[in-house]
Amino acid sequence: MSDAPLTPADCLTASAIAADVMAGTRSALEVAEACLAITAAREPEVQAFEYLDPALVRAQARAVDAAPKGPLAGVTVAVKDVIATKDMPTGQNSPRYAGCQTGVDAACVDTLRQAGAIMLGKAVTTEFAATNRGGKTRNPLDPRRTPGGSSSGSAAAVAAGMASIGLGTQTGGSTIRPASFNGIWGWKPTWNTISREGLKLYSLTCDTLGLYARDVADFDLLADVFDLDDAPRPDTLRGLRIGLCRTPVWDRTEPSMRDAMEQAAMILRAEGAEVITLDLPEIFNGLKDAHSVILGREGRTAFLNEVRNTPGIHDEFVALAENRRQITPAEARAAYGLADACRAALDDVMRGVDVIMTPSACGEAPMGLELTGDASMNSLWTVLQVPVVSAPGLLGPAGMPLGISFVTRRYTDRTALAVAGMAGEAFSRPLAAVA
Amino acid sequence: MSDAPLTPADCLTASAIAADVMAGTRSALEVAEACLAITAAREPEVQAFEYLDPALVRAQARAVDAAPKGPLAGVTVAVKDVIATKDMPTGQNSPRYAGCQTGVDAACVDTLRQAGAIMLGKAVTTEFAATNRGGKTRNPLDPRRTPGGSSSGSAAAVAAGMASIGLGTQTGGSTIRPASFNGIWGWKPTWNTISREGLKLYSLTCDTLGLYARDVADFDLLADVFDLDDAPRPDTLRGLRIGLCRTPVWDRTEPSMRDAMEQAAMILRAEGAEVITLDLPEIFNGLKDAHSVILGREGRTAFLNEVRNTPGIHDEFVALAENRRQITPAEARAAYGLADACRAALDDVMRGVDVIMTPSACGEAPMGLELTGDASMNSLWTVLQVPVVSAPGLLGPAGMPLGISFVTRRYTDRTALAVAGMAGEAFSRPLAAVA
Repeated sequence: MSDAPLTPADCLTASAIAADVMAGTRSALEVAEACLAITAAREPEVQAFEYLDPALVRAQARAVDAAPKGPLAGVTVAVKDVIATKDMPTGQNSPRYAGCQTGVDAACVDTLRQAGAIMLGKAVTTEFAATNRGGKTRNPLDPRRTPGGSSSGSAAAVAAGMASIGLGTQTGGSTIRPASFNGIWGWKPTWNTISREGLKLYSLTCDTLGLYARDVADFDLLADVFDLDDAPRPDTLRGLRIGLCRTPVWDRTEPSMRDAMEQAAMILRAEGAEVITLDLPEIFNGLKDAHSVILGREGRTAFLNEVRNTPGIHDEFVALAENRRQITPAEARAAYGLADACRAALDDVMRGVDVIMTPSACGEAPMGLELTGDASMNSLWTVLQVPVVSAPGLLGPAGMPLGISFVTRRYTDRTALAVAGMAGEAFSRPLAAVA
Repeated sequence: MSDAPLTPADCLTASAIAADVMAGTRSALEVAEACLAITAAREPEVQAFEYLDPALVRAQARAVDAAPKGPLAGVTVAVKDVIATKDMPTGQNSPRYAGCQTGVDAACVDTLRQAGAIMLGKAVTTEFAATNRGGKTRNPLDPRRTPGGSSSGSAAAVAAGMASIGLGTQTGGSTIRPASFNGIWGWKPTWNTISREGLKLYSLTCDTLGLYARDVADFDLLADVFDLDDAPRPDTLRGLRIGLCRTPVWDRTEPSMRDAMEQAAMILRAEGAEVITLDLPEIFNGLKDAHSVILGREGRTAFLNEVRNTPGIHDEFVALAENRRQITPAEARAAYGLADACRAALDDVMRGVDVIMTPSACGEAPMGLELTGDASMNSLWTVLQVPVVSAPGLLGPAGMPLGISFVTRRYTDRTALAVAGMAGEAFSRPLAAVA
């Protein structure tokens, strides 16, 4: 081990690890040992992992140390357990898949490994990443509270400092909501800019790989590895036009989030940004329902084989496969049509602003582990297929984090990352500085 | 073995097998032995399979015979080798995946097995089902000609009588074109009404599971097993309004297909149908390019990990991953927008007709095995995500088959199946009857 101690608070970001391992000042094995030590200390309380084999982690680290260094050399990754891994089981929190070996890596894992990343373990998910029924994972900031879901374990593992990067998925609000609840960075890239191959399927239209980190700079590194499109990266908040979007589901927010949005607007104005109210056109009023119809129509297809082959499967999957809501072809076509129209309309709306600012969750992480919270703030942006970056830094009355989402047009993830990065930095400064 | 000999021409349809096995007049093992015998006779010339283990086929058949009978009991299925199977390797015609064991079945295979079907073997595909470079498979009707692709082996196996059902995929014209070239029934269901989980990913927007059979009634059986939406099923051609659609790519058709379309119209009119010319609105003129841009944008995502991890991979995949066409975000958004608009426009167009009739291929199967033919006639309907059923029955000047496609609105596959079924029956009657 080198002299510099590894702690969650400082050097365990992906950027720091990769720089050190590349420079030879730290080995991947040292990083792995540090992550394993933190995990050993925190995991009994947090319960982020479904599967973690220290010997396998060390073997991966040794292989990284023996190979030419990639841009993510030594970076540890918590992999949501609906994402296939060739050397660890992929259980999907379903009795049918307990211990299931897929033989191949998901495309995203394949790409991360090629860049030198180390898969730390399989992180807890709700069943098939498709329910609000909580898993065993506790919020590292307050173990009485949910970490959110369905990417519960990945978010908690990153928040607790066990892994530098978390892989999640989002179909409703499964990446961005846990980012908010755990006080970390969350990124839902533009739909289908990172391959979904090897992720459990629920909705082809909405499912998106999601990412967690404790430093927004880590996302820049990932954007390079995954070859995201180039886009303008503003280097100052001054003069930026930021559209504060309350969305048609604003009534679902709690006072804590309304206060946080006001506070965020005040801070960004103090930084010289122009924060304007952005009202979505009327057509967006139907989008939450369209998202729900699309999930119903696509979930019917996705879970047919699971329902036929899993005796005792939870009734919510049976209801999907049986189309118990009786979604008609006409309703499905109309829902797709509305989502398509809103995507085009958003492109128009966004011509007036550089970025949209909107809540990452309804409020602070709720008490209890039974349910993972409300995805209302996220599902619109998911079905719109736009990039969303959730910035931490603000706190609610219970002392729990409140994330603010930054949204841009499809394929301009790098713009959202740049603006969210500067905003998050401003949010994290002592309040007195802006009061 | 029962006294009735099994031959491709009569009793090896899925419907006949399932009825016999259900009634107890034939065992699944007898069916399997018959299919293996036909395969042994035909495979040396046709080369439809990448992997076929007779012992595994017999073991599946014995298990089917020992279990309660499902609706597909004993039905043999050729599985395209980009579709995951838990008990056979999934090689994708890629050196990287030679012998690869996925551990889990694709969702469609899972559902078929649950209904009693037997997976006969893994059928030849072009690499990743994403190229026009031919595989080893020969057209069973003329071994000098391509069977089409990328679902080459599945189509040839069904045409040669080795399997009753073939599983293919379609991203451009990979299911419907081979159906035409091999003189069998082909069905590309409405996008995402049968799960794509476990199929190699190229384009989320276009990839669709495709199906082959030698009797359209087999598709009705499959529609039930996969729980496709109900839709009107006309029981006579008389009075049906059929829109003859030449599409904006009509100039790619050969004289043989133009003649076949005229002949088809004449036959259907003789049956009492009203065949009218259907011109697509001007907006459809850009759809072929939009399909190409969408494949470029989505292929870039899909093949990134393969390119990074497969030394010597064919340059066409490198070109995709590198976005060598330099498709911009604005072009991608515009292509999606145009495809969305055409989907909505087609719903309007189709209010005037019961079904669209259009070519399944440019002409007869070309000579040679290097290339699998031209997908121009299919890609429009693929990106429109509508159901397409290709009916055999007509022949070209070289004596090779020419398929006619029947297209309806999304989720009305059963209408397309019913109309195509009656049309195919009419096409197959001696010409003198209508001349």
